[in-house]
Amino acid sequence: MEDNRERMGGQEENMAAWLLGIKNLKILPYHLPSLVKQPMVIGHECAGVIEEVGSEVTSLAVGDRVALEPGKSCRQCSLCKDGRYNLCPGMKFFGSPPTNGCLANQVVHPASLCYKLPENVSLEEGAMCEPLSVGVHACRRASVGPETNVLIIGSGPIGLVTMLAAYAFGAPRVVVADVDKQRLHKAQGLGASSIIQVSPNIEVCHDQYNHKTMSTALKASRSGGKVCLIGLAGSEMTVPLTAVSAKEVDIIGIFRYRNTWPLCIDFLRTGKINVEPLITHRFGFSQKDIEEAFETSSHGGSAIKVMFNL
Amino acid sequence: MEDNRERMGGQEENMAAWLLGIKNLKILPYHLPSLVKQPMVIGHECAGVIEEVGSEVTSLAVGDRVALEPGKSCRQCSLCKDGRYNLCPGMKFFGSPPTNGCLANQVVHPASLCYKLPENVSLEEGAMCEPLSVGVHACRRASVGPETNVLIIGSGPIGLVTMLAAYAFGAPRVVVADVDKQRLHKAQGLGASSIIQVSPNIEVCHDQYNHKTMSTALKASRSGGKVCLIGLAGSEMTVPLTAVSAKEVDIIGIFRYRNTWPLCIDFLRTGKINVEPLITHRFGFSQKDIEEAFETSSHGGSAIKVMFNL
Amino acid sequence: MEDNRERMGGQEENMAAWLLGIKNLKILPYHLPSLVKQPMVIGHECAGVIEEVGSEVTSLAVGDRVALEPGKSCRQCSLCKDGRYNLCPGMKFFGSPPTNGCLANQVVHPASLCYKLPENVSLEEGAMCEPLSVGVHACRRASVGPETNVLIIGSGPIGLVTMLAAYAFGAPRVVVADVDKQRLHKAQGLGASSIIQVSPNIEVCHDQYNHKTMSTALKASRSGGKVCLIGLAGSEMTVPLTAVSAKEVDIIGIFRYRNTWPLCIDFLRTGKINVEPLITHRFGFSQKDIEEAFETSSHGGSAIKVMFNL
Amino acid sequence: MEDNRERMGGQEENMAAWLLGIKNLKILPYHLPSLVKQPMVIGHECAGVIEEVGSEVTSLAVGDRVALEPGKSCRQCSLCKDGRYNLCPGMKFFGSPPTNGCLANQVVHPASLCYKLPENVSLEEGAMCEPLSVGVHACRRASVGPETNVLIIGSGPIGLVTMLAAYAFGAPRVVVADVDKQRLHKAQGLGASSIIQVSPNIEVCHDQYNHKTMSTALKASRSGGKVCLIGLAGSEMTVPLTAVSAKEVDIIGIFRYRNTWPLCIDFLRTGKINVEPLITHRFGFSQKDIEEAFETSSHGGSAIKVMFNL
Repeated sequence: MEDNRERMGGQEENMAAWLLGIKNLKILPYHLPSLVKQPMVIGHECAGVIEEVGSEVTSLAVGDRVALEPGKSCRQCSLCKDGRYNLCPGMKFFGSPPTNGCLANQVVHPASLCYKLPENVSLEEGAMCEPLSVGVHACRRASVGPETNVLIIGSGPIGLVTMLAAYAFGAPRVVVADVDKQRLHKAQGLGASSIIQVSPNIEVCHDQYNHKTMSTALKASRSGGKVCLIGLAGSEMTVPLTAVSAKEVDIIGIFRYRNTWPLCIDFLRTGKINVEPLITHRFGFSQKDIEEAFETSSHGGSAIKVMFNL
Repeated sequence: MEDNRERMGGQEENMAAWLLGIKNLKILPYHLPSLVKQPMVIGHECAGVIEEVGSEVTSLAVGDRVALEPGKSCRQCSLCKDGRYNLCPGMKFFGSPPTNGCLANQVVHPASLCYKLPENVSLEEGAMCEPLSVGVHACRRASVGPETNVLIIGSGPIGLVTMLAAYAFGAPRVVVADVDKQRLHKAQGLGASSIIQVSPNIEVCHDQYNHKTMSTALKASRSGGKVCLIGLAGSEMTVPLTAVSAKEVDIIGIFRYRNTWPLCIDFLRTGKINVEPLITHRFGFSQKDIEEAFETSSHGGSAIKVMFNL
Repeated sequence: MEDNRERMGGQEENMAAWLLGIKNLKILPYHLPSLVKQPMVIGHECAGVIEEVGSEVTSLAVGDRVALEPGKSCRQCSLCKDGRYNLCPGMKFFGSPPTNGCLANQVVHPASLCYKLPENVSLEEGAMCEPLSVGVHACRRASVGPETNVLIIGSGPIGLVTMLAAYAFGAPRVVVADVDKQRLHKAQGLGASSIIQVSPNIEVCHDQYNHKTMSTALKASRSGGKVCLIGLAGSEMTVPLTAVSAKEVDIIGIFRYRNTWPLCIDFLRTGKINVEPLITHRFGFSQKDIEEAFETSSHGGSAIKVMFNL
Repeated sequence: MEDNRERMGGQEENMAAWLLGIKNLKILPYHLPSLVKQPMVIGHECAGVIEEVGSEVTSLAVGDRVALEPGKSCRQCSLCKDGRYNLCPGMKFFGSPPTNGCLANQVVHPASLCYKLPENVSLEEGAMCEPLSVGVHACRRASVGPETNVLIIGSGPIGLVTMLAAYAFGAPRVVVADVDKQRLHKAQGLGASSIIQVSPNIEVCHDQYNHKTMSTALKASRSGGKVCLIGLAGSEMTVPLTAVSAKEVDIIGIFRYRNTWPLCIDFLRTGKINVEPLITHRFGFSQKDIEEAFETSSHGGSAIKVMFNL
């Protein structure tokens, strides 16, 4: 499949204009929004049963139940060789244009990205390794451990899996903040040490939420602490970055994950993490089911993870 | 001396208002601007000759030439015990209200913060350990080494010492950007691999400079790179923080320094770093001298460091 | 109290003889056995109630229950300033000649080394912070986390607290090996994933145990793993160090601990670690009690920790 | 080519016998000596000119001058994915049985392991990236920087490249020790801060050298320092490992290298490292040349690196 995106950027050009005479400074591209011009398959969270294996595959067999890591990196660039393959510029990621996703009856995938599930881990739990991986990667990057008190702002699916991961990394206390009472209730049910409901009265647009979120995170951090940025939307934020210097707080960027599946599966196998309460709705794979599922998911609220069973 | 500052804050309160019901979240204070209400001595960069030593001091003797590290931490809090004493909440720092500074004929200081200078390091160079320490601490925190290409935005004294430190840490290439041609010329003379003059035509107020600086730094960083915040003024900045996530760039806050004097002195002793070209003006310590010195320094331009000799 | 030890060394001299012409290489002393020539108080694990506080102490009050960290470091040397105060050459440590220990009715100790106990943590548990600290420090130095499978060789008190600490740091699986069935049984009762009884038939002297222990540890380690040396006796060991290179296993030395009390107390407060089963015997503080206590302790076997209550 | 080695081990079995009842402890194999039963091509240090490229190769073209990284890892195991591919159990390494080496007129090699040489770096220098990589990897693993005083025991080729790498990483002072005066002279010529000739009078077999080397390294290390084990022969060593604990010295194992070619080439391009003085002899590739070359190399002494030019 060809790249059918249209770059919507222009920010690099603005900067280049600002930096007159820039000659030796290589500006590396970063992720821009893209415009999909043809139909494509979406989806990047899945698990399934192996129907066929390549002739050189020895680690897997037909009938094996596996969870799939959705990104194929090039394995040859310096970032891949250095183990930071999530940053590989040649990454082909399920459902990330122009690569088709895994919301399909069958997918072909490299054996080394298919992780066998133990008997006591279901396919549904296997599919949950994907969002859980985001939380695990964040905890690793932020060195979460038994001395880390964690504040999570945003009690959506990623906020919740990050809480579960933080506990599994030994965090003694995880506080969750959100504007949505129902979501906070979920966090509490899943073990949040404490929940904070942020006033829903304040009229703020989405972008202002981001500003508030980052400002709060920076201010709430202890000296020498860390703030992790996980999946924030919005291109620009107005934040008190000086606090970062004054308290030597590090802001850590999180992009997807790397080398997380074996650990996630181990968490599920041993019961250290239970993702089942996050699966709030289940659907089949008929056209009607699919439409209903997306409808359900888009409403937020009580819907955390909506699962298709084929 | 009592604390004669008046807190100008209020931002924490805003946040607290926004976070309704917050009970368990401890908001740690961060550095607010302060209003000095009484005369005080300023200055935090100095070196001198020892005139008297306490009865228990064995490491130093009268007549020793020493460089002074300006901050007395409490040595008892958890941050001090953990070696991150620059973040000590009880820090008493030369010239930081309400603590008097070192622009004086005599100061009393703990022996463990007075570092003996080798014969081939002058008192002037000794005083330069202070600004150099900022660069050294930044290079340590950012893990600068022979694989780190460095871009420094701002060619003032701190930008220049950071460049010198980066080279001493093995950085192969340091590019310096500024709006001021004269300052860039200085950077070039001190060994910058390349300089970038940013357009002086754009009408920007000081705060917007900060925005531009951070945006440029974030965009220019490679995947998995680091951006160090050193001494940025202005409380709020509007920046594309999403880039931090997408490229897993870490933003590292730098506040002063810790454990840097021995290394700085070693750099000066071995000639790995030469700070003399940074000392552009010299004055005596008469009233007239002092006024002229501050006048000179405030104009910027060719003045990098203005030195008083008593 | 003066230093009443007699250095029993000579190994440095042997080496110096071997290294002819050595001029610029500074040989730092390491810990040699010492010969105590006068009676002294032993003991370095304790907790108690405050009877008096110095005039400048604000963090503690008479009647407070506190656990004591036994080592007073100089707080001024480069190791102290860098947070590695356990390596301070000027350390004065309870019961380490020539410093008297804490097996006494009263001790005078710096406020910053006295940690207040929460209501639900007993004085006995407070005293256990000392051995537990060794395990905590080892886990920190070895970066134990949810991906670390741990093998502990030696199921004595330090082996057991290290197991408890490893679990609290998220280790999924801790295997304990020993020659003593009774001690292994204790490990199992405390949660060891698996125990390994090493043949008691092999006639080995104490030193050969050390050889075997290190060899086994090195061989059992995975590629890129770590082997921690905690409190091994015996000066020389014959070990297959080449395995260290071939698998890039790091051997990590552990000497006491640093900055561990707050974390230990938190583990006890939250119940993440329960040290009570390690306290196997209790005594008063009469002469008869004391003699009986030492007798009990010296037999090993079921005696793990023997506690004095005053 | 099939694996034509015969494992010479047996040590694991000894250990297993010692550890009675061991069931859950997986003993990972480590590198055993191997017995080659068929002729094979040796050699793992080379550079050359590209004669042909695969259809999918875009980064290289016929005529390009490249240095070759000799090990093909599987790129699929957990160690490879984590960036520690030098520890890959499926590694196929030039000249490491059963994989043929590169002392040949032509070799086929993956494009991602062929690194283009800049114009000012010769093929001979390109071939030197291999031994230099060992030094670079050791400096990275040991965190060598401007605060690291380095003692290198053994002034052979690997000792010398490690010295050059240490300086490039900013080490202020590198002391080299050896028994061979000629080799020490070479070290001095290449910039050693100081050399130490160890007495050649002591009659020691090869193994005892290793003991002495490790003992000296452990004793000479500062508190909190590191000892790197690079390519030590001999299976068992008798060493004072207790010093490791008492001073918290870490012993770091070094096996080959990973991700070092780009940095090595950069060091050569910028002149930060000059490897030419290490190339002491040059030969053609006739049978007579080859025999003479191996003869020369085996004598040691003035021969550091012996180069074949085809």
